[in-house]
Amino acid sequence: MQYTGTSEPLAFATLEAIIANIHDTADAAFEAALQRKLDHLTKPLGALGQLETLALQLGLIQKTLSPYLLKPAMLLFAGDHGITAAGVSAYPKDVTWQMVENICSGGAAISVLCVQHDLELTVVDAGVDHDFDAKRRRRFPLLDRKMGRGTADFSQHPAMTTEQCLAAIGLGMAESEVHLQAGANVLGFGEMGIGNTSSASILSHLFTGLDLERCTGRGTGLSDIMLAHKHSVLKASLEHHEGSHPLDANSDPATALHLLRYFGGFEIAAMVGAMLMTARHGAVILVDGFIATAAFLVAQQLAPALRGYAVFCHSSNEQGHQPVLDWLNVRPLLSLDLRLGEGTGCALAIPLLQSACAIMNQMASFDTASVSGPA
Amino acid sequence: MQYTGTSEPLAFATLEAIIANIHDTADAAFEAALQRKLDHLTKPLGALGQLETLALQLGLIQKTLSPYLLKPAMLLFAGDHGITAAGVSAYPKDVTWQMVENICSGGAAISVLCVQHDLELTVVDAGVDHDFDAKRRRRFPLLDRKMGRGTADFSQHPAMTTEQCLAAIGLGMAESEVHLQAGANVLGFGEMGIGNTSSASILSHLFTGLDLERCTGRGTGLSDIMLAHKHSVLKASLEHHEGSHPLDANSDPATALHLLRYFGGFEIAAMVGAMLMTARHGAVILVDGFIATAAFLVAQQLAPALRGYAVFCHSSNEQGHQPVLDWLNVRPLLSLDLRLGEGTGCALAIPLLQSACAIMNQMASFDTASVSGPA
Repeated sequence: MQYTGTSEPLAFATLEAIIANIHDTADAAFEAALQRKLDHLTKPLGALGQLETLALQLGLIQKTLSPYLLKPAMLLFAGDHGITAAGVSAYPKDVTWQMVENICSGGAAISVLCVQHDLELTVVDAGVDHDFDAKRRRRFPLLDRKMGRGTADFSQHPAMTTEQCLAAIGLGMAESEVHLQAGANVLGFGEMGIGNTSSASILSHLFTGLDLERCTGRGTGLSDIMLAHKHSVLKASLEHHEGSHPLDANSDPATALHLLRYFGGFEIAAMVGAMLMTARHGAVILVDGFIATAAFLVAQQLAPALRGYAVFCHSSNEQGHQPVLDWLNVRPLLSLDLRLGEGTGCALAIPLLQSACAIMNQMASFDTASVSGPA
Repeated sequence: MQYTGTSEPLAFATLEAIIANIHDTADAAFEAALQRKLDHLTKPLGALGQLETLALQLGLIQKTLSPYLLKPAMLLFAGDHGITAAGVSAYPKDVTWQMVENICSGGAAISVLCVQHDLELTVVDAGVDHDFDAKRRRRFPLLDRKMGRGTADFSQHPAMTTEQCLAAIGLGMAESEVHLQAGANVLGFGEMGIGNTSSASILSHLFTGLDLERCTGRGTGLSDIMLAHKHSVLKASLEHHEGSHPLDANSDPATALHLLRYFGGFEIAAMVGAMLMTARHGAVILVDGFIATAAFLVAQQLAPALRGYAVFCHSSNEQGHQPVLDWLNVRPLLSLDLRLGEGTGCALAIPLLQSACAIMNQMASFDTASVSGPA
């Protein structure tokens, strides 16, 4: 294992301690107080729809009647996938590092959207199979935290060793903690990794019990024939690793980690860690598309209380995403037929979070504005 | 008729001349050029979904490969409705003027959202039944352009005289032209008028042919019994004005104006005029919720080419809106269960328009970024 990152491999006991410190956001009395505030604002009851639901969630997370966003940041984790050798992607593997450079140069969709929304963007090489020029000057920082040169081909071997998987989770924790300790109270997570819809499909299947076929989509644009091939590769991979069966709610953390290490990716494991640490700090987790939701499924299995911190930003056009969102019983803020990843959905949702805060902080109440209520 | 506004009543010939100068945005060759540009950006084909559709529409409207937003502004028209005497609203009529003051003071949802998105907000009294204090200092300007003190009760009389209806259209044209001549290339239109879902329901029914019942919703929050009463009032109003039957595509402008004057409102007629003038200037029309879409239906009947300029911002939770959007075969940008009006959906959609422009102007192409295409 090549491992050039600076993060210490994460001890399982440390992980358990972090999980134990993720507090459930539910608080019936405080929720009632938030609802009262919303109901007194100068609008018909509930007329701001999902913005009100969002304001309520932000209030519960921050334990305040006046929620706000502080130093919102985007962490984008990149990694390569051994499974690309099996021909599961429309784009060659080199696109991972090429797009990492493009993101760092400001030319990718996520770069443009982070500039638009004043989101601090950091790109983390969690395991790209490429030697990046450390001396190159980039518009957005690229952190060298390689856990390896791509994962192993999971049609043959577990994608990661146990050490790699824990280290990648620890990496996500460490990089998110940098922002959280600096005061950020909302973090979005993006990813770049040719082949990672294959990981996400298997993880979605294993963590929800939905049919593998429903969870398997076209990724960056597979034809029908290539999609059928991808599905057969994924099916054979599951069969190859005997005993890889869907989890249930009682499955222990070790089993969840086992499946993550067999079928995940460095960037996915890093997102799992980042989500856990964000919830541990009582901050908002912005969940992007299909890959990020797969990471969320793993994180939620490890720490069910994490759910209250997660804002689902958009429903992806990638086939597996909507069924998983339905299984989670969540309704994302946006539905724009995106299927790009990179955290683009998180960036696009930021103004809606800002609106939810603005409504709570700046709208008048019926009393103060002298507006009559219902007749 | 009390008429204190400064706009000249609009001559029918002038209206026809403006309509004749709304140019169809369709341009197959230019659309292909826009699509080529989109397809060369560093993302899988079509992966930015509705943002790409929007970028393409903005490019067609502005006839440029690099669309941009200039001086986006929000015009909010307010008016009272005689039909409120029939008990069709959950809120008393006085809420119209109270909310106008609240909007102008910065306390309403639209005020807060316009500040967030740096939208210039102007409130126009197109016919509120209240004497506003002309000397009061307000955070946002309130223009006195009264066409009357509320419309007539359309269950008994036409809501407006022909002169009032044309003057209200002219008012919308004049107020939007102020911004368009100053360089604004995107205008959003909001409304405030207790009772105006009743007008919008009848207009939606008459301009689409959809059942009146499907077009009739709870407005600001009617109970089941009150909703049934509202529907019976609207049905009786249609019957009272014999010959008020759904239009077809061949109906002439005079017929459309006739129905607008019988069942519309001052703020709705003003929005019709504002939309027409915006398209006439080649600028983007932001269409808000149920009321604004009813105004759009009238404007589109007058000038079918207007459609290319319209960006549908959100799908309202008001019952009649989604069926009308389906009838129009449009998919709005947002679906957040809003049912507030005021132009709130337009304001919330602004960042998405900015994103569509940013993508076209700032993303790298596969060539310039040296990123490989599909294998």
